[in-house]
Amino acid sequence: MTHRTIPPIPLVVIDDVVRRALAEDLSRGDLTTDATVPMDVGGVPVLRAREGIVVAGLDVFEATFKLVDPNIQVERLSADAMRVGPGEIVAKVTGAANPILKGERVALNLIQRMSGVATATRHLVDALPPGSRTRITDTRKTTPGLRAFQRYAVRCGGGHNHREDLGAAVLIKDNHVAACGSIATAIQRARDHAPHTSKIECEVDTMEQLAEALEAGADIVMLDNFDDATLRKAVALVDGRAFVEVSGNVTLERVPIIAEAGVDAISVGGITHSARAVDLGLDWS
Amino acid sequence: MTHRTIPPIPLVVIDDVVRRALAEDLSRGDLTTDATVPMDVGGVPVLRAREGIVVAGLDVFEATFKLVDPNIQVERLSADAMRVGPGEIVAKVTGAANPILKGERVALNLIQRMSGVATATRHLVDALPPGSRTRITDTRKTTPGLRAFQRYAVRCGGGHNHREDLGAAVLIKDNHVAACGSIATAIQRARDHAPHTSKIECEVDTMEQLAEALEAGADIVMLDNFDDATLRKAVALVDGRAFVEVSGNVTLERVPIIAEAGVDAISVGGITHSARAVDLGLDWS
Amino acid sequence: MTHRTIPPIPLVVIDDVVRRALAEDLSRGDLTTDATVPMDVGGVPVLRAREGIVVAGLDVFEATFKLVDPNIQVERLSADAMRVGPGEIVAKVTGAANPILKGERVALNLIQRMSGVATATRHLVDALPPGSRTRITDTRKTTPGLRAFQRYAVRCGGGHNHREDLGAAVLIKDNHVAACGSIATAIQRARDHAPHTSKIECEVDTMEQLAEALEAGADIVMLDNFDDATLRKAVALVDGRAFVEVSGNVTLERVPIIAEAGVDAISVGGITHSARAVDLGLDWS
Amino acid sequence: MTHRTIPPIPLVVIDDVVRRALAEDLSRGDLTTDATVPMDVGGVPVLRAREGIVVAGLDVFEATFKLVDPNIQVERLSADAMRVGPGEIVAKVTGAANPILKGERVALNLIQRMSGVATATRHLVDALPPGSRTRITDTRKTTPGLRAFQRYAVRCGGGHNHREDLGAAVLIKDNHVAACGSIATAIQRARDHAPHTSKIECEVDTMEQLAEALEAGADIVMLDNFDDATLRKAVALVDGRAFVEVSGNVTLERVPIIAEAGVDAISVGGITHSARAVDLGLDWS
Amino acid sequence: MTHRTIPPIPLVVIDDVVRRALAEDLSRGDLTTDATVPMDVGGVPVLRAREGIVVAGLDVFEATFKLVDPNIQVERLSADAMRVGPGEIVAKVTGAANPILKGERVALNLIQRMSGVATATRHLVDALPPGSRTRITDTRKTTPGLRAFQRYAVRCGGGHNHREDLGAAVLIKDNHVAACGSIATAIQRARDHAPHTSKIECEVDTMEQLAEALEAGADIVMLDNFDDATLRKAVALVDGRAFVEVSGNVTLERVPIIAEAGVDAISVGGITHSARAVDLGLDWS
Amino acid sequence: MTHRTIPPIPLVVIDDVVRRALAEDLSRGDLTTDATVPMDVGGVPVLRAREGIVVAGLDVFEATFKLVDPNIQVERLSADAMRVGPGEIVAKVTGAANPILKGERVALNLIQRMSGVATATRHLVDALPPGSRTRITDTRKTTPGLRAFQRYAVRCGGGHNHREDLGAAVLIKDNHVAACGSIATAIQRARDHAPHTSKIECEVDTMEQLAEALEAGADIVMLDNFDDATLRKAVALVDGRAFVEVSGNVTLERVPIIAEAGVDAISVGGITHSARAVDLGLDWS
Repeated sequence: MTHRTIPPIPLVVIDDVVRRALAEDLSRGDLTTDATVPMDVGGVPVLRAREGIVVAGLDVFEATFKLVDPNIQVERLSADAMRVGPGEIVAKVTGAANPILKGERVALNLIQRMSGVATATRHLVDALPPGSRTRITDTRKTTPGLRAFQRYAVRCGGGHNHREDLGAAVLIKDNHVAACGSIATAIQRARDHAPHTSKIECEVDTMEQLAEALEAGADIVMLDNFDDATLRKAVALVDGRAFVEVSGNVTLERVPIIAEAGVDAISVGGITHSARAVDLGLDWS
Repeated sequence: MTHRTIPPIPLVVIDDVVRRALAEDLSRGDLTTDATVPMDVGGVPVLRAREGIVVAGLDVFEATFKLVDPNIQVERLSADAMRVGPGEIVAKVTGAANPILKGERVALNLIQRMSGVATATRHLVDALPPGSRTRITDTRKTTPGLRAFQRYAVRCGGGHNHREDLGAAVLIKDNHVAACGSIATAIQRARDHAPHTSKIECEVDTMEQLAEALEAGADIVMLDNFDDATLRKAVALVDGRAFVEVSGNVTLERVPIIAEAGVDAISVGGITHSARAVDLGLDWS
Repeated sequence: MTHRTIPPIPLVVIDDVVRRALAEDLSRGDLTTDATVPMDVGGVPVLRAREGIVVAGLDVFEATFKLVDPNIQVERLSADAMRVGPGEIVAKVTGAANPILKGERVALNLIQRMSGVATATRHLVDALPPGSRTRITDTRKTTPGLRAFQRYAVRCGGGHNHREDLGAAVLIKDNHVAACGSIATAIQRARDHAPHTSKIECEVDTMEQLAEALEAGADIVMLDNFDDATLRKAVALVDGRAFVEVSGNVTLERVPIIAEAGVDAISVGGITHSARAVDLGLDWS
Repeated sequence: MTHRTIPPIPLVVIDDVVRRALAEDLSRGDLTTDATVPMDVGGVPVLRAREGIVVAGLDVFEATFKLVDPNIQVERLSADAMRVGPGEIVAKVTGAANPILKGERVALNLIQRMSGVATATRHLVDALPPGSRTRITDTRKTTPGLRAFQRYAVRCGGGHNHREDLGAAVLIKDNHVAACGSIATAIQRARDHAPHTSKIECEVDTMEQLAEALEAGADIVMLDNFDDATLRKAVALVDGRAFVEVSGNVTLERVPIIAEAGVDAISVGGITHSARAVDLGLDWS
Repeated sequence: MTHRTIPPIPLVVIDDVVRRALAEDLSRGDLTTDATVPMDVGGVPVLRAREGIVVAGLDVFEATFKLVDPNIQVERLSADAMRVGPGEIVAKVTGAANPILKGERVALNLIQRMSGVATATRHLVDALPPGSRTRITDTRKTTPGLRAFQRYAVRCGGGHNHREDLGAAVLIKDNHVAACGSIATAIQRARDHAPHTSKIECEVDTMEQLAEALEAGADIVMLDNFDDATLRKAVALVDGRAFVEVSGNVTLERVPIIAEAGVDAISVGGITHSARAVDLGLDWS
Repeated sequence: MTHRTIPPIPLVVIDDVVRRALAEDLSRGDLTTDATVPMDVGGVPVLRAREGIVVAGLDVFEATFKLVDPNIQVERLSADAMRVGPGEIVAKVTGAANPILKGERVALNLIQRMSGVATATRHLVDALPPGSRTRITDTRKTTPGLRAFQRYAVRCGGGHNHREDLGAAVLIKDNHVAACGSIATAIQRARDHAPHTSKIECEVDTMEQLAEALEAGADIVMLDNFDDATLRKAVALVDGRAFVEVSGNVTLERVPIIAEAGVDAISVGGITHSARAVDLGLDWS
C-alpha cells in the first residue's frame, strides 16, 4: 500500500482549524506542565491504537504539535486510510516533553474523532457485498467547524462524499417541492437556475414521486425510508435513468440488502453525526 | 420549572462559533432553496424531538437563524435542561421559508449534538443513587471548536464541569510525576507555581501513590481505573482529606457502585467525545 | 417586476466582507469628515447612475452604511437586476452626514464593481439571439475575496454561475489528462472519486478529444478555442449526449454565432476578471 | 536593473489576504486534481506573459503556492516593475503537480490583477512628456480587500500613491465645505484638528474656489474636471504656492496636455477600479 | 458644552476590539456570577470617578455591555472629553445584574485606560501657557491592539495625534539618514517616493542637522533632546520655514518653557506608553 | 542561571497577538524606510536597557521581527526574568536594515510594556521580607488583548498569577453576596455549581464577614482594604483554615508590613493596569 492514497487536506485549511482548537485549550498556558516539566526534558511517546481502527488525521495530528513547537517531529509508522490493529503503533512523536504534553490533548481529540469517522465508515463499506459498486456516502450532518476534517475521514474509511455544501449541488426535498407545487416544477426551476456543473437530486418518499422525478429528468433520486421490497421495485423503475441514492434507516445489517437491490449509493448521517471517538492514546515509555 | 435554570453561554461566544458554522455550509449560497422557494413564502416549522431527550442549545439554535435573517422568530415551548418526550415540540420557528431552509441544517447540527451531550450526561446522572452527592463531570475530551457549547450541555444534563482548560487548574499525571521524580515533588512544584485559586489534582494508579498524594497535600485525587474493592479502600484511606474523583472504565452500570463507594465525582470523557447526536428535527406542516 | 427576483447573498457573508472593506479604509478614522462635519448635520444624498447600468449590490451598499452607523436608512428606488438609465436614482440614503461620508467610498467601491459585473454580463446575455436557451456563465476567474459578490452580480446580469469552487464539481483539463495518460482514464477516476452530486466536465481542444470524452461519458464537454465551423461539427457530434460549454475567444460579436451553433453555455472569464466599475455616484443636494 | 527596486509588501499582509483567497477556492478541496493527479507526479510549469505587461505580484504569487505546499519553489526570471514582452517567461514553478494545480487559479487571479494595475499605470506614466516631473497617482477607488496589493502594483507601474486611507491625510470635498460654510473654514478646522503630519488638500471646481483655497493655505489643490485652458490659468494662479493635483476626465490622450500645463500630479481612479486582468498563464510542458 | 465634541471611533472598529477583549475574560463563562446571581435580579450600578479625570471611552464602555447582553442600557451623565471631579457619576448602567457583572471588568479595564490617557494628556495641555498655540501630540508608542482607542483618548484630553502608522507620513530618523548618506538625500528620496499627501518630517539632533533639513525642504523638523537654550536658537533658525516639533525629555515642568520657545508641537510617548489607568469604578447600590 | 526558567508563552498565542500588532502599524507599509533604505543594507542593532529592568518578552520581540522578515536573527545576551542594568545589551538583531526598521516600533512597544510589568512586579517582590513565603499576584485588571503577555511578565518578575479569567475560579464579591442574601449561601451555591477544580475565594470587608466566610468553608479569603492592625487580627482568626489574600491600598512601603502579618498573597492591580513601559531601545552602530 502506498503511503498517500488519499490526497491531503490543504495545509491552509488544517492550520486554521488547529489554531482555533489550540486556542481553546492552551491559550491560557498549561499550569501543570509548566510547573513540573522543565524545557530540557525530552520525550518520545508513541501514538498507539488501543482497538482496531482505520487511521485518519495524521497531518492534523502533526500540525497540532508543530504549532506548539516547530521542533517536534512526528514519524509515521502507519498512514491515513490504513487499518491498524489493537496495540499497534501509528506514529512516534519526538521532541521536548513540555510542548508535547501541551499539545497532546488537542492532537488526540482531533485524530480520535477523525479516525472514529473513518472506522465507522469502513464498517459500513466492509458490509457491502464483495465486488459491490454501491458507495457509502456522508451527508451534511457534520460537526460544525470540522466538516473538511470529517469528509476527509470518510474518504479514509473507503466512503465517498456527498455534496460539499448548500452551494455545490441541488437536493430537492419536500419543502422545496411544496413551495413549487410539484416535483416537476421544482426540478425545472433548479435546472434553470443552478450551475450546469451541479447535478439535480430529488428526494422521493413514494413510487409515484419517483416516477414524477424521473419524468422530470432528475439526475439523482434519493429514496427516503423505502422498505426493502419497494426499494427493489424502485430500482427496476429507474432502470438506469438516474443515479439511485438510498437514505434513512440504514443499519449495518441492512447495508448488504440495500446494496443488492442495485442502488448506487447509500448516504448515512450517522458516520459523521454519531461516530464515537476511537481509542488512540499516547504511550510514554 | 423556571425557563432559565442554566445561565446562558455569553452572546459573543455563540456568535463567533455560529458564524463559522454558517460559513461552512452557506457561504456559497443555497442553490436549491434559491431556485425553488421565493422570498415571500412563509413557514412555521416546529422543532420536534423524535426520541426522549434533554434539550440543550436553544440560544444557539435561535442565533443560527437570526444570522441568516434577523426577522426569523423562535418561540420556545421548552427550555434548555428540560426533559422532552418523543413527539414533543421544543420550539416553533416563524419567518420566510427561504432563510429558514438555509439555516435549518446548521441549526439542527448544533442543537442535536448539544442535546446529545445533555442527554448522555443525564443518563449517567440518573444512574446515581437517590440523594447521592456524587457529581458526574466532563473532561477536556471535547470536540475541538465546540468546548463552550459542550460544557454548557453537560450542565444542562445535570452534570458538572471539570477544569475549563490547561490554564485553569493543575492535574498531575504520570508524565508530570516522571519529570519530577516523585508525586511529592510534582505537587510541591505545582503549589509553588500555580495561581492560588487553582486546586491541585493528582492522578493515582495505586494505593501507594494515593497515600503519597495525600501526604503531599493534593486537593483532589483522581483514582484511575481502580476496581470496586480498591475504590472503597481508597475512599477509606482518603477519609475526607481530599476530594475524590474517579476516572476510567465508567459504565452506566458501574455508576451507582462507584457512587456508593463514597467518591465525590466521576469524570467521563464519553459524554463529550462519543455522545451521538439525538433525533431532533424540523417538521413543516 | 417584483423587487427581489434574485435571492440575496446571506447576511453573514455580506457582513464578513464589508467589515474587512471598512477596516481597510476607515479603521484609522476619517480626518477630514471629523474635522469639518459636526455629528448633527443631516444628509440625504441619492445614489445615481451616471450611465446605463444593471444594478447589483444594494444589500451590500446598505450593509456598509449600517456598519458605520446603524441609524442610516437606505430607501431603494430600484432593485438588484434592474436596468437603470443614465441619471436615474437608484437609492436614497438618509442619516447624519458625518457617518454617510465615512462609508461613502467603500459603499461605492462595492456597488460600482458589482454593478459593473452585472452590466458586463447583461451585455453578453443581450447579445444572445432572441429565445436562445444558451446561458452565459462566469468562471473561477473572480476577484480574490469577492467571489460571492461577483457570482451574485453575474446572476443579476442574467447570467448563470459555473462551479463555485474546486470542490464543487469536476473539470478535467489537459494537465489532469496528462497525469492520467488519457481522457478516458481521467474521467473514470473522477467518476470513481468525486461525489455523485458533481457533474464531470472535460475540456477538449480537438474533435478527437471530444469524441474520447463523449465515449468516456463526460456530463459536460468544454470546447476550448474552437472556431465557428468546428463548433458546429462538435455540436453535431455531441448530439445531445453531453452539455456543451464553449470557452475562449468569446467576444460580444461572436456570442450570437456561438449560440446559434447550438451550444448550451458560454463561459466568460472577462465578466469577472476585467469588468470595469460602472459610474454610480452619491449626489448630495 | 536590480531585482528589487520596489520595496515589498510586508509578509504579514500578504499572508492574511492570500489565506482568505485560498479559503474561497480550495477550502473544500480540489475534486479534479485529487482524483486524477497522484501526489508523486512532478511539474515545472512556467508563468508566461501572453501580452506585453508590467509584472507586479511575484511575492504574492509565490506565497500562494507556499501556503498550499511549502515545498513548491518559485524561480523568478523577471521581477516586479519590469516590462515583459508577449511570450516571455516570468517565473518557473517547481514541485508536485497536485498542489501546484490546486493553487494555480488563485495565484493567477492575484498576479493577473496586480500586473493589470501595474500595466495600466505604466501606460499613463509612459504618456507623460519626456522628463516630466508630473506624477500619476491612484485614488481610494481600490478593490475592497486588495488595497495594499493594488497600491503596490501602482508603484510597480511607475505611479505614486495617494493617501492610504481616510485617516492618513485631509481631502476636503464639496460636502465638507458645505457643512462648514466656506472653504476657508473647512481648511482652518482641518488644520486645527488633523495631525501636523497630514497635508491638507482641497478639491476645487472653479477659479474662485481655487483662489479661496490658496488664500486659506491649502497644501494641495485638486482641480476637478478643469478644461485644458482653465487648467493653465489655474497653474499660473497657484504659482508654486500649493501642490497641484488634477482629477477627472483623464484619458491617455489628455495626460501629456495636462502634464504640460505644469501640474504636479494626475490622480486616476481607473487604474485601480477598472484595470482589466492581464493575460498571464501557466504553461505546462 | 455639547455632548459630542470629539467625533466617535467607528462602530466597526470598536466592535472588533471589544469582542477580543471579552473573549479573553469571558469566553469560558463566569463561574461566580452564574452560580450566585439569577438571571432575574436587576441592577443599576453607576460608573463613578474616584478621582478627578477626563472621561474617554463611553462608546467602548457601552459596547462592551451590549455585546454581553443587548438589553443593558447605559445612560450618560457626562461625555467623552469632559472633566469629572472625584465622586461624580459618569454613567448609569441598567439591566440584569448577571450580565452586567460579566462585562464589568472588561468595560472598566477599557474605560480606565482610555480615561487615563485622556487625563495624562490633559495635564500636559493644561500646562501650556494661556493662549498657546503649541499642540501636545502622541507618538506611535501606543499599546499594541489599542492604538485607535488611545489616539481617540488623546483627542479627548485636548491633545492631537501624530501620524497614524508607518504608512501615513514620512518621519526620517538617523538610521534612514545613515542609509542615504545625508539628510538631503533622505528627504529627496522621501519626496520622490511618498504620496504627495504625506508631509516629510526629519528628526535632527544638532543645529547643523537642522540647517541641513531646512535647506532640503523638510515640512516638519523634530528637535530631539534639545536643551532650552538651543531650542530657542533652533526656532529662530527655522523662522517659519517648517513646522517645529519637540521630542524627548518632556516633563510637565518643561512644557511651558518649550511652548514659550515658540515650537508648534510637543510629542510625548508617555501619554500612551506609561499612562496609568485612572480610578473609575462601578458602584452598586 | 539557566536561560529558560519561565516556561514560554505558546507560539500560537504569540503569533496571533503579534500579527494584529503589526497590522496596526505596518499594514499600509512604511513610507520612510521604503523610500530611504534599500533592501541590501544590513544592520545589527542591539537591544539595550537604558535603566535597570527585569526583562520579559524576548520570544515576542523575536516573533515580531520574524513576521516581517523570517531571515532576521535575534541573538539573546540575556533572558526573560533576568535583571539587567542600565546600558546592558539584552539582545542583538541581525538582518536587513529595512525590515528591522519596519518591525522596530512594534517589537519595542511589546517588550517595553512586558518588561515594565515584570519590573514593577519585581519591585514589590523585592520588598517582601527575606525568606517570606507571601506571594505577589496580579489581578484581572490586565490590558485588553494582552492578558497572556502580562501574566507571563508577572511571572518573569517573580510574581504569581491570580485566576486566568472569569471561568477559572470563583471569587465572590459583595454583589454576588447581595444577590444570594448571605456569604454562606453564596459560597454554598458556588461550591454546588463550580468545577471541583476551582477554589472558592470570598472577598470580605469586615471581621464579621471573615468569620462568616471561614464558617462557610471558603478556600481563600480576600481581605479588602483592611488596616494593618485588623489584618493581624484577621490572620489570627483564620488560623490556617483558609488561604489569606490581601487586596487594596497596597504600596511598596506597606508590602513588608502586610507580609509580616502572615498573609499568603498580596494581589496588586497596579502591576498590570498602571505599569509604565520601561526604557529599552534599539541602538544602531
